[in-house]
Amino acid sequence: MSKNTKVNAAILIIGNEILSGRTQDTNTSTIAIWLNSIGVKVNEVRVIPDDEKKIIVTLNLLRKENNYVFTTGGIGPTHDDITAQSVSKAFGIKYELHEEAFKILEAYYQPGEFNEGRQRMVWMPENAELILNPTSGAPGFSVENVFCLPGVPSIMKSMLGGLKNKIVGGEPILSHTISLRTVESEIANSLTKVQNQNKDVEIGSYPFFHAGKLGVSIVLRSEKQSEIDNCNSQILEFIKEKKIEIVDR
Amino acid sequence: MSKNTKVNAAILIIGNEILSGRTQDTNTSTIAIWLNSIGVKVNEVRVIPDDEKKIIVTLNLLRKENNYVFTTGGIGPTHDDITAQSVSKAFGIKYELHEEAFKILEAYYQPGEFNEGRQRMVWMPENAELILNPTSGAPGFSVENVFCLPGVPSIMKSMLGGLKNKIVGGEPILSHTISLRTVESEIANSLTKVQNQNKDVEIGSYPFFHAGKLGVSIVLRSEKQSEIDNCNSQILEFIKEKKIEIVDR
Repeated sequence: MSKNTKVNAAILIIGNEILSGRTQDTNTSTIAIWLNSIGVKVNEVRVIPDDEKKIIVTLNLLRKENNYVFTTGGIGPTHDDITAQSVSKAFGIKYELHEEAFKILEAYYQPGEFNEGRQRMVWMPENAELILNPTSGAPGFSVENVFCLPGVPSIMKSMLGGLKNKIVGGEPILSHTISLRTVESEIANSLTKVQNQNKDVEIGSYPFFHAGKLGVSIVLRSEKQSEIDNCNSQILEFIKEKKIEIVDR
Repeated sequence: MSKNTKVNAAILIIGNEILSGRTQDTNTSTIAIWLNSIGVKVNEVRVIPDDEKKIIVTLNLLRKENNYVFTTGGIGPTHDDITAQSVSKAFGIKYELHEEAFKILEAYYQPGEFNEGRQRMVWMPENAELILNPTSGAPGFSVENVFCLPGVPSIMKSMLGGLKNKIVGGEPILSHTISLRTVESEIANSLTKVQNQNKDVEIGSYPFFHAGKLGVSIVLRSEKQSEIDNCNSQILEFIKEKKIEIVDR
């Protein structure tokens, strides 16, 4: 049922604050939507603690299984920011002061403000490529197919644009949503038939509550518009038969 | 640095809609906060697609590595809801109509409304224990240490209360937050010293932007209030020295 596209990625969210529930992760959704738009499908997301061993083991697995890995979190100046040194160890390369990053931050801060804490942020895996940060100066970095971004959502988001030329995606994954004033059980059988006749379209069914009313969003995803259109027609057909109302959503 | 508590859990979010970025997962945070309150620490979260093989492999790994596993998603009536059958296969037990669940839904719906689609929701692993659903009838279920909950956040949340007696946690994990009008680099060195002197407290440092101003929240987590208090005093000390303002957050 689920479709394998040629280019895929994993997202690795690093941070105790997500696992404790204190912070709601929103980076997954931001990165996934952006990746979809450039033809990369997210296969898996993992959230792990700020724990060196766990980062190393998880990263070494994900970077082999996926075309790309995106990490968020743990690249700031405090003791719990251990992503850069862990990535260095995962790749077995030196963790050292990055000259270019040093120059960027030296120029970014007022004289005297580029203190010891901030200088910690320019320590990276040897020869890492920088990911520029238009919001707050301190760059992220990439090593091979692993891209390390900060955890603060607004900063992270502002850095994605700069990655466009570094990621080679497949066909963009197209999607179409049909929202209905119905419940899933009313359409389940018909939808199964449509799925069986359209194996290459990923058809999702998602119940929602909105403005006090129940509904279902059907989401069609494929790389081919013609496949989505075909699937859409078949769904519109059974909706009409069942006299189910289409709603905005 | 990170502390191992005696009782831990993994959360397994099942659903293409999270991986595509269409839907923002909020269940992780809800479950994690609830688990913390009953003394269970979340070790790891994974988000995987509605893919039988992937569900089986991931579940069989997580249920061995953790005291508890909580899954969300994929237990509705449509073709993409394959969690129950996948869990059955993961445990190598029969997937069959659950008599008790059948009776619950038969009573829940108006005569004639308990149709084929809805009846799909009472197929579960043989002898699964039900997790009652006060919101919309259809129960979740548990097998051994694996608890399967729906993906719709409001429904999922309403079912957690019923699990309290089934989960045996350790000491509740206590936390204390100190929010400061500063930037991380100003406090990084002092905080490292405090962490080194308080190995059993997990100290997190989280920058925030609020009302146009930068700040940092320091979060202290431990099972022991005395350890948190001790750590807190040391932090208040260096804050005073540095003349950093404490803010509400």
